[in-house]
Amino acid sequence: MYAKNFTTEIELRKSKIQSVICRSGADAFLVSDNANLFYTSGRVFSGYTYIPAEGEMIYFVRRPVGLSRENVVYIRKPEQIPDELSHLGIALPRVLLLENDSLTYNESIRLRNIFSEAKIENGTPLIRGVRMVKTLYEIELIRESAAHHSSMYRKAPSVYKQGMSDVEYSIELERLARLHGSLGLVRIFGKSMEIYMGSVLAGENADEPSPYDFALGGAGLDPSLPISSNGSIMKPGNTIMVDIGGNFTGYMSDMSRVFSLGEIPEKAREAHDVSLEIQSEIEKMAKPGVAASEIYDLAFDIAKKAGFEANFMGHRQKAGFIGHGVGIELNEAPVFAPRSKDILAEGMVFALEPKFVIPQVGAVGIENTFVVTASGIEKLTQCEEEILPLD
Amino acid sequence: MYAKNFTTEIELRKSKIQSVICRSGADAFLVSDNANLFYTSGRVFSGYTYIPAEGEMIYFVRRPVGLSRENVVYIRKPEQIPDELSHLGIALPRVLLLENDSLTYNESIRLRNIFSEAKIENGTPLIRGVRMVKTLYEIELIRESAAHHSSMYRKAPSVYKQGMSDVEYSIELERLARLHGSLGLVRIFGKSMEIYMGSVLAGENADEPSPYDFALGGAGLDPSLPISSNGSIMKPGNTIMVDIGGNFTGYMSDMSRVFSLGEIPEKAREAHDVSLEIQSEIEKMAKPGVAASEIYDLAFDIAKKAGFEANFMGHRQKAGFIGHGVGIELNEAPVFAPRSKDILAEGMVFALEPKFVIPQVGAVGIENTFVVTASGIEKLTQCEEEILPLD
Repeated sequence: MYAKNFTTEIELRKSKIQSVICRSGADAFLVSDNANLFYTSGRVFSGYTYIPAEGEMIYFVRRPVGLSRENVVYIRKPEQIPDELSHLGIALPRVLLLENDSLTYNESIRLRNIFSEAKIENGTPLIRGVRMVKTLYEIELIRESAAHHSSMYRKAPSVYKQGMSDVEYSIELERLARLHGSLGLVRIFGKSMEIYMGSVLAGENADEPSPYDFALGGAGLDPSLPISSNGSIMKPGNTIMVDIGGNFTGYMSDMSRVFSLGEIPEKAREAHDVSLEIQSEIEKMAKPGVAASEIYDLAFDIAKKAGFEANFMGHRQKAGFIGHGVGIELNEAPVFAPRSKDILAEGMVFALEPKFVIPQVGAVGIENTFVVTASGIEKLTQCEEEILPLD
Repeated sequence: MYAKNFTTEIELRKSKIQSVICRSGADAFLVSDNANLFYTSGRVFSGYTYIPAEGEMIYFVRRPVGLSRENVVYIRKPEQIPDELSHLGIALPRVLLLENDSLTYNESIRLRNIFSEAKIENGTPLIRGVRMVKTLYEIELIRESAAHHSSMYRKAPSVYKQGMSDVEYSIELERLARLHGSLGLVRIFGKSMEIYMGSVLAGENADEPSPYDFALGGAGLDPSLPISSNGSIMKPGNTIMVDIGGNFTGYMSDMSRVFSLGEIPEKAREAHDVSLEIQSEIEKMAKPGVAASEIYDLAFDIAKKAGFEANFMGHRQKAGFIGHGVGIELNEAPVFAPRSKDILAEGMVFALEPKFVIPQVGAVGIENTFVVTASGIEKLTQCEEEILPLD
């Protein structure tokens, strides 16, 4: 199922999950969300991972055929799981955790009927809490993703051609990302979140509100996907915010950079400098024990004092956060929002994205991915942070 | 919310949905799945469409800000819906349909608590049944998508360069699709289905089983996304199956074509001809009233008689269907499988994909998108169907 040297890593993840299962008072956790299957096994399969409070994880696999490794049990349907557990000498759970925030209602009811004797509780927040603090192995994968991502961003100006529409530039950036090893798919928690690889926002389109819970919007090309570039020609006086997601290893990194065409208003440069100042102040104070809400408040205060409150995190429509955890999914915990309860801990990895929308000009600001170390935070995405001219 | 000439279309969709609400004995249907929001309003938003058995649909919108049109009510949270309905003089439903196959368990429980007096029933199969039969307006959008898609496929050989890996070729095809107007995102029903734009399968990678419920597999580049190309160099003797999804209008078209490098074995050509024969026989008999299962059986019988049963719809792992409806999502009804209960009706649109995997050589076969007419079926994707040499 995964390379031999990966066994220790899976053992570590298992013990992290088992520890929260124990603390919750449950006997087992049955996961089937692709992100959690990948986390618990090292690969995506169709089926379920059964994690007992103690003992081995069992992989109940529907597809693909031919997985040969310990603890794999092939099934056609989840109704076979109780019998298979009995054959393995594993007692049925009295309290079972399910992914109530990602299983559909009908999938959940089906599993509840299968484990009809068990009390069912919600495991989604628990496993998201576990995944929030990355292992060293995971941090290495995010570091690798961030390195490819940064290298791609350094070449972003080279694929611009005069007269391009925002979509045409986006297409060349998507290709650049793929040539640098991007898997393409950006895995997102929550079925209502949709995006194609990332976003390129030029000029006034940056101020178009979108239905999605991303930091910024854009009208998109079609009402079926109202996000990101809208096909307008990029013009002198525009800023261009490039926010193409990085998924080079199954683990996401997230970064944005801003480019300019012709002369851009001083106000845009000032707002961009405020973003860099926010990032720099956060780098000074962020460390284990600091509250994510405190970090949001610091950013908001700096933006407000600089006179950019009306532009902070959007203008016609505003995002309610300035950062988010990244990992197997693009939107993990912690969340950097006013009412967030998350507290920084060593091993967390997050994207920080203080941004401003300047009407008629475009978006400015910065986004980088950081890991929380024992004493502070370390930036994983490395690339020029000033506004670079494309022309 | 949508262009003025779109009003008649939305009225038509409303009456189709209201007819199934009525027949089910329910008083209303509350939808929040992006595909169903798009279907009921003409755009994706964050919120809910409330469809009463009679009367106007109400759009409860969280985001984006600034939608100005009739029947839009802004809300912060779904708990406001009952009060807002009362303000509008609409009686609360006694029987309410919810999307039990796409709402998460917790979302569904939240809505059940909000409508605690109502009996809740599953509306997912009903609206998928409605969406299965397309309106003329929708057929025009799929026709347009299919035209762009076909035009892109005609240029597919032109972006091949000798010595490319399957992924490098895929990247150029993705760019080609985007330059032809593809929105990129391929919308799929079911959270466990993941793919990036489509699939390019060359040589023996075509025989790698995947966890996903697509017609064919491929190992992919990473265990986090085990589908499609795996980075191997395409070699003489390989067939290359290109199956890049088409989403040019918010409506999907689906097509595949096969290319070759160097001399390929006669067996591969024979199997490809069997695919074309299957398609041709289905074109002769498919019309309103014909069962989808009958069409599957016909395809299977032709494949078996030709001696290709072991290769039909996969070799190491097989798909259980030879076609599927397309529309707002890539995997709609009808399903062409042995136990399908679907019966063809005028206005259905589906992709037919009889394919074979020849070990060590690659995949062969054909995929086109068809619309069911009053007396037969019409092919919407038009492009050379023989195996074309890339070199």
